Amino acid sequence: MTRGRFITLEGGEGAGKSTNARFIKAWLEQRGREVVMTREPGGSPLAEAIRSVVLASWSEGMPPLTEALLMFAARSAHLEATVLPALEAGKDVICDRFVDSSYAYQGAGNGFSLDKLKTLEEMVLGDFRPDLTIVFDLDPNAGLQRARSRGDQNRFEDETVAFMQRVREAFLQRAKAEPARYAILDAGNELETVQADLSKILESRV
Amino acid sequence: MTRGRFITLEGGEGAGKSTNARFIKAWLEQRGREVVMTREPGGSPLAEAIRSVVLASWSEGMPPLTEALLMFAARSAHLEATVLPALEAGKDVICDRFVDSSYAYQGAGNGFSLDKLKTLEEMVLGDFRPDLTIVFDLDPNAGLQRARSRGDQNRFEDETVAFMQRVREAFLQRAKAEPARYAILDAGNELETVQADLSKILESRV
Repeated sequence: MTRGRFITLEGGEGAGKSTNARFIKAWLEQRGREVVMTREPGGSPLAEAIRSVVLASWSEGMPPLTEALLMFAARSAHLEATVLPALEAGKDVICDRFVDSSYAYQGAGNGFSLDKLKTLEEMVLGDFRPDLTIVFDLDPNAGLQRARSRGDQNRFEDETVAFMQRVREAFLQRAKAEPARYAILDAGNELETVQADLSKILESRV
Repeated sequence: MTRGRFITLEGGEGAGKSTNARFIKAWLEQRGREVVMTREPGGSPLAEAIRSVVLASWSEGMPPLTEALLMFAARSAHLEATVLPALEAGKDVICDRFVDSSYAYQGAGNGFSLDKLKTLEEMVLGDFRPDLTIVFDLDPNAGLQRARSRGDQNRFEDETVAFMQRVREAFLQRAKAEPARYAILDAGNELETVQADLSKILESRV
């Protein structure tokens, strides 16, 4: 059986990843693929429990190193329980956020050591990487406005525009450094335009 | 202010670490020290929440890498919130289990990569190590019997004697490799003898 494709969706808040994940799923299913949709942090019962710990408010705060270790702990569980078994069964997997978010949020956003993130990535992923990573690129002001207007608010969305600007730049830099794996989507357009662009990406890359 | 001493207690199940932690606390307090007692995994609200995730039963199981990352995530939170502030305030800290348990249980017991444990230790501890680690050494058969007789049962106590034998050997090897930091206590004796031995260790080492 041919291994499925692992497609990750990255980008700031309010960039439309969830809506467009459903669009990608439908696109793949129309072509006869079985599709698993998942997300990080989370995506398995154990990983979701770790997600709850990461996103909760702690009186002692959340030390950046603890957060990074928890994120990669959740990632390792998610890979073992959900992502790898689906890919090996020939299913495509669409994942809302993956390792690029660790670099963008913990690294560029919070200034956590990129070396430590690389060490954890190597430990948890080895050579495994997404087949395609779509970066939903959006001006942070527009993204935060969209996220707030739909009432979304978690610890990660309660951030400044300057933080989100660093996150955006990190996604773009990573995408430009490895164009074979990444596609950048202008998520600031109307939904119809975004999905037309998305179809073009999928037709050429999947 | 002089930094406090960090004393860790290691050993298999039923070796009397908890009972003797109280003895050590009293011994230090009689000498005018302020003492904080803590434990791993856990020792801060965030670290205790991670402990709950580690010790729970998961339908997907607990992948060894996930477990190691969670253990060190808990350790980093515990150090930040509890251990380092107490030591910096001049208090002594007695900790029931610390990094040696990761090597003994995940490493020697479960066969998880010692290299990965070293990488995580370096990431979380840097140069920080206990001032004194007391290994409560006990034949696994006696230890499991004691643990069961007091009704203790968690995921780690539900292990075979062969597993516990590997754990015991790992503690002893680590202690013998670095005698300046470790003391080995024969925990198979009667409590009075154990505490007389413990007093001698404390008098010569603290």
